[in-house]
Formats: sequence, C-alpha cells, structure tokens
Amino acid sequence: MTTERREASRKTEGGENELQEWSVAARDVVEFVPHAAAWQHVGVVTAYPARLLADQLLGTGMRLVLDFGETLVGKVRLRLESGGESDRPVRLKLLAAELPYEADRDPETFCGGLGRGWLQEELVTVHDFPAELELPHRYSLRYLVVTVVSAPVCRVKLTRAEVIARSAAGEALPPPLPGWDRELALIDAACSRTLRNCMQEVFEDGPKRDRRLWLGDLRLQALADHVTFRRYDRVGRCIRLLAEHRDERGMIPGAVIMKPEPHSSSFVLDYSLIFARLLLEHCLFSGDPELGGEFFDAAARQFDFFRAGLDDELGFHHPGGWIFVDHCRELDRTAPISCTAIWAAEAMAELAELLKRPASEAARWRAEAESWRRALRGSSFDPALGMLRSGYGGQLSWASQIWGILAGVLTPEEGRAALMTLEKREDAVKPNSPYLMHYLLEACRCCGAEELLRDTIRRYWGGMISRGADTFWEVYREGDDFYTPYGSGCGEPDPRNNSACHAWSGTPGYFLRTLPPAEGRGTRR
Amino acid sequence: MTTERREASRKTEGGENELQEWSVAARDVVEFVPHAAAWQHVGVVTAYPARLLADQLLGTGMRLVLDFGETLVGKVRLRLESGGESDRPVRLKLLAAELPYEADRDPETFCGGLGRGWLQEELVTVHDFPAELELPHRYSLRYLVVTVVSAPVCRVKLTRAEVIARSAAGEALPPPLPGWDRELALIDAACSRTLRNCMQEVFEDGPKRDRRLWLGDLRLQALADHVTFRRYDRVGRCIRLLAEHRDERGMIPGAVIMKPEPHSSSFVLDYSLIFARLLLEHCLFSGDPELGGEFFDAAARQFDFFRAGLDDELGFHHPGGWIFVDHCRELDRTAPISCTAIWAAEAMAELAELLKRPASEAARWRAEAESWRRALRGSSFDPALGMLRSGYGGQLSWASQIWGILAGVLTPEEGRAALMTLEKREDAVKPNSPYLMHYLLEACRCCGAEELLRDTIRRYWGGMISRGADTFWEVYREGDDFYTPYGSGCGEPDPRNNSACHAWSGTPGYFLRTLPPAEGRGTRR
Repeated sequence: MTTERREASRKTEGGENELQEWSVAARDVVEFVPHAAAWQHVGVVTAYPARLLADQLLGTGMRLVLDFGETLVGKVRLRLESGGESDRPVRLKLLAAELPYEADRDPETFCGGLGRGWLQEELVTVHDFPAELELPHRYSLRYLVVTVVSAPVCRVKLTRAEVIARSAAGEALPPPLPGWDRELALIDAACSRTLRNCMQEVFEDGPKRDRRLWLGDLRLQALADHVTFRRYDRVGRCIRLLAEHRDERGMIPGAVIMKPEPHSSSFVLDYSLIFARLLLEHCLFSGDPELGGEFFDAAARQFDFFRAGLDDELGFHHPGGWIFVDHCRELDRTAPISCTAIWAAEAMAELAELLKRPASEAARWRAEAESWRRALRGSSFDPALGMLRSGYGGQLSWASQIWGILAGVLTPEEGRAALMTLEKREDAVKPNSPYLMHYLLEACRCCGAEELLRDTIRRYWGGMISRGADTFWEVYREGDDFYTPYGSGCGEPDPRNNSACHAWSGTPGYFLRTLPPAEGRGTRR
Repeated sequence: MTTERREASRKTEGGENELQEWSVAARDVVEFVPHAAAWQHVGVVTAYPARLLADQLLGTGMRLVLDFGETLVGKVRLRLESGGESDRPVRLKLLAAELPYEADRDPETFCGGLGRGWLQEELVTVHDFPAELELPHRYSLRYLVVTVVSAPVCRVKLTRAEVIARSAAGEALPPPLPGWDRELALIDAACSRTLRNCMQEVFEDGPKRDRRLWLGDLRLQALADHVTFRRYDRVGRCIRLLAEHRDERGMIPGAVIMKPEPHSSSFVLDYSLIFARLLLEHCLFSGDPELGGEFFDAAARQFDFFRAGLDDELGFHHPGGWIFVDHCRELDRTAPISCTAIWAAEAMAELAELLKRPASEAARWRAEAESWRRALRGSSFDPALGMLRSGYGGQLSWASQIWGILAGVLTPEEGRAALMTLEKREDAVKPNSPYLMHYLLEACRCCGAEELLRDTIRRYWGGMISRGADTFWEVYREGDDFYTPYGSGCGEPDPRNNSACHAWSGTPGYFLRTLPPAEGRGTRR
C-alpha cells in the first residue's frame, strides 16, 4: 500500500463552487469482534498495517476490512494486481461504512425503514490486471469491507486502496485552542471534521444519507463554520439557494435538493422562521449585509405562516403542516414553535437595525415578539414548577424550556433553575436528537449556565467520542445503541440508515471557541 | 419501452479493427417456470411486451426478467424514472444471462468450478432521476434479470432497456439457402449468430466466458466465416496474432489473451499442428497467399514438437504437455494426435504447392505423412473391427476413427463403416464436446458419409435448437442437461460456467452451405 499522497491537494473544477481533494491511503487492516461494551456491540481490533497488503494473496471467500484512520467523504480508488497468470475475473463485494456495526453486518440482513439503497454497497468485476478501479459513487466512510466473491486460481493482491477525499473546506482542521484537555480537543476536531465532510457542493445534512441542504442544519453549520473554515461565500450561496426556492405562498423550504436541478422539498415551519436568525448571523459573521437586504422581506414573510395559526389568546399555535423541533413523535410543539417565532422576530428587529431600516420597523418586531412572549407566559408558565408547559395538555418537556429560554419567555434565572430541575423530572419529554441538544447548549449560553454547557458537551458529545466517533452522529440517545428514528421492516431496530457524520451534531466547537457574553467580552460573532 | 433502433448501425472507433454496433430493445417480459421437459428444467413463458414496462411502477423486492429476443453481445443501457418525488436511491441487482437456468438461479448459490466472476452480475445504485445507465461491462446475454433491492416510496419505472449489440460482422445474418426446411434454417442462423457474437476485437471462443483467441476455435470460425461474413482481414489478423506470439522454442500458442497487452497462453500440441491447416485454408479462402509465405516456416516448426515425441516404432507419440482433442479425461490421445500431425502435414504439402515452393518440399511433407500413416496403421489398426485403436491400452474411441478418417489412416470405405459401427459400440469413448463433433462432421464429409453428416447436424445441433438455443453451446451432451467439464465446488454439477454461445459449436452452417466433393463439384473452399 503506497502511503504517499498522490498530490497534496487538488481542486475540482467549477469556479466559485470548487471542492478541494486529497488522497488518504488505507491505514490499517482491522477486524471486528463482538464486544458488549463497544458501540453497537462491535469492537475494532487492528490486525496489521494496510501497506502489508501489497504482499498478500487474496483468494475466493476472503474478507478484509480497511480502516482509513478517519471518517472521510470522497471517491474510493483501488489497485488490483494478479498473483500470476489470471484465468478468470475477480469479483469483489464492497461495503463502505462510517461505523463498525454498519460495516460488519451483511447488507442482505438490512431491514431499516429508509431503504437499503443508502447502504454503500458495490459489486465490481475486474477482467484484466493490473487494474485501477474507481468506485462509481461518492461515499462517506471510515471503513471499506472488501469481500472476494471470486478470484482466479493465482489469486489477487490489493496493492493500493485510497480515498480521494473531498470538501469545500479542504483537508486541514483548525488546531485546538490552548488550554483544552484531550477530550475537548477531540470533541472540537470531530466537530470540524463533521462540518468539513458535510461541506460539499452545498452544506449537506449528511454526506452518507439524505445529502440535502436543510435550512435547520445550515444555521448550525454556519455557526460552526464561523469559528473554523469561515467560508461565508458558501454559506451565502446556500442561503440564496433556499431563499430563491420559496413556494408560491412565499414560504422558504426546509430543504433544497440539488439534482437533477435544484428544487425545494419539505416545508417545515420552525425552519422557515429560523431563516431570519440565519440571515442575521450571516450578515454579522461575514460583515456583509447584502443578503440581509435582499432577503429581509422573504424572512419577514415566514411569520405570516406562524400568525395564521395563532388563536384568540395569542398563545397557542395550531400547527398546520410540519413542525420539527426534534425527532420525537409525542412532543407537543405548541410552546416551542411560539418561542421559535419570538426568537426569530427578535432577529428580525436586530436585522432591521443592522440594515439601517426605519427605527419603527425594529420596534414593531420587538413589540410583536413581546406580545407573543406575554401571551405564552400567561397561558403556559407553571409558577409552581417555574417552567413552561406546552399545549392544551400542558406537556412538560426539555424542548419547551430550551426554547423558552432562547425566546426570553423564561428569565435567565428561571432558565438556569429549569435546566437544573429538568434532570430530576422523569415526566419531562427528553431531547432525542443532537439537533435539540444543540439548542440546549444555546439555551445554556443564553441563560449563563456555562457549567452545564461544558458538562453537556463532555457528557453527550464526549460520550460519542468515547464510543469511537471522529465525526458526530445524526442520532445519539445515550444508553440506546440501536435507536433509530427511521423505523424498521423486521420488528427489531436497524440503525444502519442513521448517519454517523451529520451536520446538526457538529456545534460544540462553536461554543468551545466562543466566549460567553456573561464575561462581558461578547462572543466572537 | 421504445422499440425504435437508436441508429441503424454505428461503428466504434479503431480503424481496421472497428466493430459495428446496433441497438436492440428488450422484446418481452418473461417468467421462468420449473418444467421437467425444458432444458435444464427451466421453461420460459412470455408475460407481456416489454414496452408496457414504461407504465409499471417497480417497488422494493420486485423481480423482472427481460428477454431481448435473441442472444447478443454488447453493452446494456437502462433508463430509470421515478414514480414521483424520490426520497432515496434505487438499488438494482442485475444478472445478464444467455440461458434460462443461468438467469433463474441466484448467483449466491453458484458452485461451478471456474468461478462466479464469470456470472454476469452487477449492482447499481441510482440517486438522481431520470437516470440513463450504461452497465460497466460487455455482456453476452439474451435475458436480463432486474431485481429491485431498494426503491423509493414513490417507486421507479424502467422506461427503456436496450442492448447496444456489437460485432465485427455487423447485425445481419446471411439468408437461408433455397430448399432448406425450417430446422436447417434455424440451425444455420444459430451458427451465423454464434460466429457473429464471437467476432469482437478478435475471434473469441466465447463472449461470455474465456473471451480468448484460441487457435483451435479460430480454424472452425474461419470455416464458418468463409460461407457467411467473409471477413478474411479479421481472420488474417488473428492468424498473425497467434503466429507472432510463438514462444522461445517457436511453438505457436493455443491462445492469445488480448489484455492488458496481447500475450500467449496455453500451448496445446494439436492446436499448434492445426495452424498449418488454418494457414492453408486462409490462403485458399481469401485468395491471398501472403500470410502463407510469411508463416510457412512457423507452421513447419510445429511438427518438431510432434516428432520429438515419436518412439522407435514411429507409431506412438508420448505426449508431453497438453493435447486437447476433446473435453474427455479418459480419452487416449495417441492415435488422434498422430492423425492430426498427418492431416496437418498434408496441409503443409498443399501449402508448399500453393506457394510454388520447390516440388521436393511438398513431396517431403507427403512422404513424412505417409510414413506416419503406415506406422500408425501398422501398430493400431484392428482388422477384426476395421477401426483404429489408440495407445498401449488399445482404447477404442470416436476420436480415433474421426481423426483416422481425416488423416487417411482409414480409407473412405473403412471410415464410413467405422462411423456406422461406432453407434453400436458402447465401449467406444464418445465425443463430449461440440468441438470433436465438428470433426465428426468433417470426417463424414471426408469419407462421403453425407447422410450421417446431415443426420448428425439435425440430431445434435437440431437438439440444441429444439431446447431453445439461438446460438450454439460450448457444452452439449445429449440427455445430460447439467454436464459441465469445469467441475463443482459443492458435489452437484453447476453448469453456469458453460458458455451458450461458443465458437467451436458454430460450423454446421459451413457444411450446409458447401457441397460434398463426392458430387464432383468441389467445395466452395
């Protein structure tokens, strides 16, 4: 196995949208072993360095697992040489995978809810040697499982295996900040790697599965990008893509799918409201208000879809259509969506000021936010608990407190107290996704709960690190290795449709690399 | 399914070695049914015309069998459209196959001796629709089995399936001769189609498996080509390829493999001797003696490898290395190889005359042939039987009589009598391959057994036709549907490594299209 980089860095064509490419040779040949303490019960044991493969003859039925040393997104290239005069073709089954479980399980057993088409399987046949193969798709992988379905009598050698990795951000991750311990450094690097791997033609939610530009994910990616790669041009292009795909009502879509031509998909009310915040932060981060001016009215229009659902008491929203907030069927979204609207309206006010629009505009936005805040507090604040309830059923949830803090429906003091109390309340609906966990971090910062913020990063994201993550996962429920929000076709959960590199999980680095406003120095916004 | 031909005919690049291409759309969707009377127990039932596929939504788990109406060699192109907004990739398993059994059996059950790599399997994943796919290899197929491993909820449609067929001979097969019945016309067409499908960059033995230029096959292809496509340029190029890959001793190889660079493979004594006959016939057929002059000495050199094995009695050859004659382990090859040398030496004499070399040369070749003939007759002719025996064990075989007739060791009268008698001799080792069956036809013609020749064509090749063949098979043992010379890895025979379109089986048309010399009008040689 040649370990030298073919080229230090190479750029794909495509002008402003070019990607950087770099080559990563397989590092080790590894073996998977059943292990109760390992994530999803599959442990990884290093067998030997991959460069030794060049001398190894592979015959029919052999199976090799290559470890590229880190999770990468890109093309896979293999070089095969025959062990002598070849009399017949070689056929290989290949499975590219992010996680050991996904790599170790036979795709034939797949019963996940979204479809085996997302498993990264290939079947290749090689007639002539030596052969330089490039597998036909782009993969997100750390492991490549090579099964020799059929080989000539003389057998074959895998003399090179490399990933031509690609990202709009390039290969290098930003160095850790001084004073971090190893855990924080690993968490931060995994955040940067997650973002890097998702930065392709657009900011994708997950480069293995879905691969869409999602508005909710983009806001979190823009936060992470601001403290790492600072590709404001890319963020701006994606904001434009979303804004320009408004539907006939003017609603900004939750996602844009790029192929065959860019088109909208999935209208999600909380995402549409969040657009205001994304737009404001982009103007602040990049120092360029241009997009803010261009899409101010588009952002303002999203609130009409929220207003249309308000009832007479101005406190409850009857959701029509999709409101996400979290992967959680039983979650009452009434309070969280109202809080999202309040928090987004405050962003509109700030944006109006930034754009030097008439002072009355900002005032109007603030007044509306305040009216919604009062109404919600009036209808849903439980003084005995010091927390927000949600909906006619008065559901207690983490989501309501998190969003209540961000919206200022809870005061910082109430917020800190609520966050401390929630841990002990078994009846509170818990967060399910790293997406809502991000907003927990944001709420911590907002109400000055910096210790809880650090503890949460170490416990939740550090928990993924200790379970082998080098990019952060789409789905992580502590203590539940096989949880998937995507259902099953066979009675038992099959988590292989979950992504192990997912945009919305990569924000702890943003908090680690910015200072709390409580210290009076402001954030690095 | 569009039925129009994309272009009537298209030529690949490559100067003198260009191939012609044409498009064939899938004709029918068929179903396989178990049927004891069908070849290999798999019957084919037409379900509906393939053009109706354009309206059919295909979901996960569906399996379709496309029938292209005839066996073809080429690339496969598919067009896939989604049934709505696609939310996930489509994954298809594809299996291209020549015969129903090969198409119907799951490749996972394969246990043939040569390797599953020769099964024409693919796995494709399509992310974006509509998609135009070209499968990555060249296939030999009549059937394409499409299994939908995974589809989006909206499902997909297969709106086009076509083979971009290719051959150096072009699409059209020569029309039948006047007076033939339907069976003879079908046999002749299958011969021409077999040859056409094998005529690629070189004359291949089988376009599904092996795909080599074999000397023994080339001679038979040159006979068939002479009465059909008359691509003497192609034959000449292949003769040159073989002759120019002589080893350091001067031995002409049994085969040339074209990739990555042309190189020799498999030195087979009977094939090397047959080169003389191939060269002579090429000069006669093409009317151009150039190659004859160029490679006369090379052809002559092959006899040294035969002479080196002769013992004192000049009747027995001790074979060193590979002598083929037939797929038959127990066959004693002593008499057949001596006869091959005699028959080839007669060709050398004729070639010497054609090239106007000194008369003494032809005389010397004839004298040597005659000395071998006498020696073999002296040692191996059984006067009580009127047949040749072979080797120290005195084995009785069809091969010895067939080659004895061609070599003139048996007179025409003895030959006719021997061929009639053999049918009743259970102890005579029978032919196993269509290759030796060709030489039976050639022996019939040589000794004037024209009725047996026609009967054999109708019974043996007509037998394949009645079992569904439209190209002739590499392996056909009457009454044994599962015979394979290639062994098994699981205790029961797996005939899926056998080719169903194989060069050496396609010569009946040569005999049907030429007249017996007994009628005094000469062959069309």
